[in-house]
Order: sequence, then C-alpha cells, then structure tokens
Amino acid sequence: MFMTQNWTIKSNWSYAAVMATKIHRGTARLTARGSLTRARIIAGATDLVYDQGVAGTSLDDIMAATGTSKSQLYHYFADKDALILEVIRNQLAKIIAGQGTELRAARSWDGLQRWRDHVVESTRATGGVGGCPLGSLSSELADRSESARRVLAACFAEWEEYLLDGFRAMRADGELSQDADPQSLATAVMAALQGGLLLSQATHDVQPLELALDMALGHVRHYRPED
Amino acid sequence: MFMTQNWTIKSNWSYAAVMATKIHRGTARLTARGSLTRARIIAGATDLVYDQGVAGTSLDDIMAATGTSKSQLYHYFADKDALILEVIRNQLAKIIAGQGTELRAARSWDGLQRWRDHVVESTRATGGVGGCPLGSLSSELADRSESARRVLAACFAEWEEYLLDGFRAMRADGELSQDADPQSLATAVMAALQGGLLLSQATHDVQPLELALDMALGHVRHYRPED
Repeated sequence: MFMTQNWTIKSNWSYAAVMATKIHRGTARLTARGSLTRARIIAGATDLVYDQGVAGTSLDDIMAATGTSKSQLYHYFADKDALILEVIRNQLAKIIAGQGTELRAARSWDGLQRWRDHVVESTRATGGVGGCPLGSLSSELADRSESARRVLAACFAEWEEYLLDGFRAMRADGELSQDADPQSLATAVMAALQGGLLLSQATHDVQPLELALDMALGHVRHYRPED
Repeated sequence: MFMTQNWTIKSNWSYAAVMATKIHRGTARLTARGSLTRARIIAGATDLVYDQGVAGTSLDDIMAATGTSKSQLYHYFADKDALILEVIRNQLAKIIAGQGTELRAARSWDGLQRWRDHVVESTRATGGVGGCPLGSLSSELADRSESARRVLAACFAEWEEYLLDGFRAMRADGELSQDADPQSLATAVMAALQGGLLLSQATHDVQPLELALDMALGHVRHYRPED
C-alpha cells in the first residue's frame, strides 16, 4: 500500500467496486455541463500524472489544476482509483490521436515504414523525454492495482489492434505470407516500441528506438512472400 | 515537483551535489560496521522501492524497514535523492546476480538461447509480476531527475555490456559476420527484453516476452554467416 497526501491507493482495488461506480456515476446520467466538467478533471489529472506519476499526484493537485472542489471530484469519481482508470484510458486516446493517422495507414510496407518514421521523428523532437506515457503508467500501476492492470492490458490490446488490422490487411493483400501470424507480429512490434521508447527516455537518444523499430520491421519482413 | 510524506524530490537534482556527497560521505571513510549499516539501508530501500515506487516510499518507511534512525540515514546519505541513486545501482546488481551466469555465457548461439530461456522461465514463474525493476525505476525517474537518469543510462549500458561482450566474441569466433555491429545488436536485444517484460507485466502473460526475445534472436541470426 502506498500513500499520497490525501488519498490512499489500495494494493488491490476492487474491480466490482469500479464497475458499480460506473453504473451509479456513469456518464449517461450527466448533463452536458457535467460531462464537460468530468472530462476537464480527467484531462487535468492526465497531465499531472504524466508529469508527476500517480503516487506523486494528490487530490489537492488535481483540484488546483482543474479548478474543482473536493465535492465535485467525488461527485464524478468514487475515489482516486476510479479517476486513474479514466486517466489510463485518456492517455491511450491521446496516443492514438497523436499517431492514429499513421497507425491506420500502416497496412502496407510503405505505410508501416511511415508509421515507424513518424514515431522516430516525434521521439527525436523530444529527445526521448516522456517515454511512452502508457508504458510509464503500466510500470507504476500494474503490480499495485489489479483493476488498473486490466485496463492497461486492454489499452495495449486496443493500441495493438491497429497494427493487427494492418497486418491482417497485408496478409489478405498478399503482402505477408499466409504463415504470418498478425497477432504475434503486432505484439512483437509493440514490445519493440515500448522497449525502444523506454531506453530512449533513459539515454536521451533516439537511437535505441530506431534500432528496436528497425528490428521489428525486419522481423515482419521475414514474412514477406518470395517475389 | 512531487511530494512524499517526508522528503521532497526536486525535479532537477544537482549532480554536483551528489558527487560532493560521494566525496564527503563516501564508503572509504566508513568502518566495517558502518559499511554494513549503509548496505542494509540500501537493501531495505531497494525492496521498498520495488514494491511501492520511489514516490510511494517515505523516509519513515525506510527507517521502519531497516531499523535505523533519521540521524543514521542522514549520516550515510545526504538526502533521499542520494539514496535512490544507490537503490538504482543495487537494483542492477540484483538483476546481474539473477541472470549473470546465463548473461556471461551468452557468447555462442547455444548460450544466447539459454539466456533467453532463463529469462522467459523466470518470467513465467512470476506471471510477469515485477516487470523489469530497472525499467520501472527508469519510467518513474528518468524525466524527474537528471542525476537519476544518468545513473539509469549507465546501468542499462552496464547490463548491455554483457550482451556486447558476447556478440564481440561471437564475431571474433566467426559465429557472427563481420558486418554485424555488436553494440547495435546489444541495444536492440535490450529493447526487446524491456518491452517484452513491460507487456508481460501488464498482461500477466509470458507470451509478449517470448515473442519479443524470439524476434530479437532472429534479428541477431540475420548476421549469421552463410554456411
């Protein structure tokens, strides 16, 4: 169990409790204004957690950054745990917004290369700072909250789904051989991306990411049919 | 800046301050008993940080776990930042102790495969829990402390050095072709390892690690000379 200034994060958050929260406090009951406030809290919390980590982000920080009161926070979220699950989902949405165009176009050899180049150039621009925000959340939370781990696994799967769709299309188009397993390829590429981003963040050098993604694309090319 | 219960972690720790601390409080001046106490504090802090993260581990936690007083802690470490740098180094030492035999033997195709199998079986035994302790420290600290980032980068380089030595030996022995770049191969394999461990931690499934390491070994095999 680890403590922050105001909230306690339990080692095992109750998944059932989170589901119950979704039913009782779900967005379906919110007014348009309420939905906006809820989204503003999630957006502010996402930025704070990106900068400070989950354990380093307090309820006070989130209230100050989003101009909300404690009663407002508890109106929209049962507890910090419930809010953090939304932060995880929002972080994935931000990633997809950032690379979605290239991800969706990664359904040919050229498209795959353009996605690789986009990710590498984005990382070169930041010098590796930031790493992968979803990967960082996973490192912090996966062993400390089972409900967070499930949401993280689902988010990685959703992200991989773009690569999976692309590899399926390439196999259907004859750009990948029939013995290629699109799911295994997507997972291997995601692992290379995660590991490359982590090492680039530690070294402030884009090269580990480049080496990792080029290894991954070479791995996919292994399943290119003979001309 | 993020707060813990007792200590404040500054966004930019002073590297010079840490170096000065090493000179003034270096182990060279410690008695044998003092060295043991210092090592005990580092070992206890490493376990706590592994469980709770850096931001979630307070001075009180460390004092309670190691049976030391605040004045003892400050006798051996200038501040939490200085202690955390030692925790990072100690975490690498624990990793090398865990897979060092296989790492040192990864200087042939068989040895490389045995290292891969050792890492995969260790991860299967834990169901992915724990991920990579060094990778987790990197995710938490790399953007928040420049001195920690430098130590993390040095630790990854030290770990990669084992793979690098192996690939150099394989090239010298003619098991890798002359156009293989041992450093690039070592970094790519480390990226696959990090990404695989991260996804296996999130999914509680060893498969992402297996796929990542098999991709990495296939990448190395690409440089196998033609028979």
